Amino acid sequence: MPVLLSFPDDRLLAASVADRIGARVGRLEWRHFPDGESLIAVDEGISGADVVLFASLNDPDRKALPLRFAARAARELGARRVGLVAPYLAYMRQDTRFHPGEAVSANAFAQFLDEGVDWLVTVDPHLHRIAALGNVFRIPATAVAAAPKLADWIRREVAKPILIGPDSESAQWVADVAHHAHIPYEVLHKTRRGDREVEVSLPDIERLRGYTPVLVDDIASSGRTLVAALGHLGRLRLPPAVCVVIHPIFAGDAWECLQRAGAGRIVSTDSIAHPSNTITLAEPIATAVAVHLAERPSELRP
Amino acid sequence: MPVLLSFPDDRLLAASVADRIGARVGRLEWRHFPDGESLIAVDEGISGADVVLFASLNDPDRKALPLRFAARAARELGARRVGLVAPYLAYMRQDTRFHPGEAVSANAFAQFLDEGVDWLVTVDPHLHRIAALGNVFRIPATAVAAAPKLADWIRREVAKPILIGPDSESAQWVADVAHHAHIPYEVLHKTRRGDREVEVSLPDIERLRGYTPVLVDDIASSGRTLVAALGHLGRLRLPPAVCVVIHPIFAGDAWECLQRAGAGRIVSTDSIAHPSNTITLAEPIATAVAVHLAERPSELRP
Repeated sequence: MPVLLSFPDDRLLAASVADRIGARVGRLEWRHFPDGESLIAVDEGISGADVVLFASLNDPDRKALPLRFAARAARELGARRVGLVAPYLAYMRQDTRFHPGEAVSANAFAQFLDEGVDWLVTVDPHLHRIAALGNVFRIPATAVAAAPKLADWIRREVAKPILIGPDSESAQWVADVAHHAHIPYEVLHKTRRGDREVEVSLPDIERLRGYTPVLVDDIASSGRTLVAALGHLGRLRLPPAVCVVIHPIFAGDAWECLQRAGAGRIVSTDSIAHPSNTITLAEPIATAVAVHLAERPSELRP
Repeated sequence: MPVLLSFPDDRLLAASVADRIGARVGRLEWRHFPDGESLIAVDEGISGADVVLFASLNDPDRKALPLRFAARAARELGARRVGLVAPYLAYMRQDTRFHPGEAVSANAFAQFLDEGVDWLVTVDPHLHRIAALGNVFRIPATAVAAAPKLADWIRREVAKPILIGPDSESAQWVADVAHHAHIPYEVLHKTRRGDREVEVSLPDIERLRGYTPVLVDDIASSGRTLVAALGHLGRLRLPPAVCVVIHPIFAGDAWECLQRAGAGRIVSTDSIAHPSNTITLAEPIATAVAVHLAERPSELRP
């Protein structure tokens, strides 16, 4: 029987995935010392088992070493294979040297994970110049699509929705959700002014009349993109916009700012544990994990 | 000419080491994003050069990935070899599974560094069950001894010193410094009550009469060991004790607590940048780095 070991923040989704794949949930403890070191302890009854680590990789610098320690401890305690479910995968946006001397963190982070685990399941990684996970990962890696679950929720919960992508980067997610939900969509265009400031251009107002706007984005980090989009939509005398986010990072005061920005409702998937979690990804993640667990070891290291 | 790339906290010692080995100090920038990701950028003029990364590894979880990114970027930009000077080396105390299921972080952290750099120079790693760095590292690794510099300082600055080790773990450092300084020493015995609480047994008072007590420890993390030792020495009507620390971590409020604990003077080496830094290790570190730079590449990966 596979054993699922979850990092503390991810236990709710992990338990739900474990139920669906018939895995046992084992112990994983993360103790923090005052000097900044971590002590990881894992279930000792995993000899010969397929181990599935569960760790969403928001706040990646803080989690990387503990994740490595957990994977290595699992191997030392006899795990047959060690896979990783990281519903949010960090660092995929730094996929090239934008300025001289910069680290290409996407490749370096992928290599770091390659060294530690045998396979990876993630959800909608933010890939641009990288066409597929297989171009940066050497281990078998599956990108689960959240779009069908987002489409289901929007069709069920929102009357006469029109999807709106808050910027051109969101176009791929919005188009995908619109396709699954069979509803129209628009994409705004934003100009970034530093890490936190964003300006958004107005959409064609007439196209939106009579619809409930649903802002869809893959990552809400500073939240400024959504706040700016809500600000512009607010002037159009439409019903309050619904915000649907795949990965709710909400760094610093981002969540408080977004709550004050006039949205009708703000929901997210459970890829990162957050009060806004409404749409669970347990089913598609479980399906992807089951595929990796069914692989023969010879298929794992090509 | 070798190029030395220093993490932000370590630039002072790094510049001093660079001077002594005739290295150029190159650019290394560490940008922090609100979502917990880091962006590292390094000097682009390092093609064909020996690169020496300089990063004391206090707060190791936060620094591990950025260090890896810097090492990989240096290689991608053409560095011939990439070495690491980590005056403080984290995780060496977790060198066995003290309880079932625990990660052996010392070995896992050593492997993480092995994967990233070609050689390592550190200062007095806290080794107990591990006899030598070579037992955990596969790359060539040198442990610089701080004892001669500590002995020099104590002989020069303290009238009639007697060294005191605040606990049995400190015995190896204290004996070593006493040997170099040709002065007597005593070792206290402590009982640990959790991560932060410590109780210390009294030494033989008569042995200390007429001396200035000099507490010597390798790591001051919570500082509680030194605070407890100062508390006991304070009742013996001796001159105020001098505290000499190799690695001044001083987590949380440790530095403030130690300053209030009645020491005559508190000094440290510059292995970790801190207001208490008084004894520089630039010379012995430079000597060790020069040895690694002189190695032929064929000697580097045995």
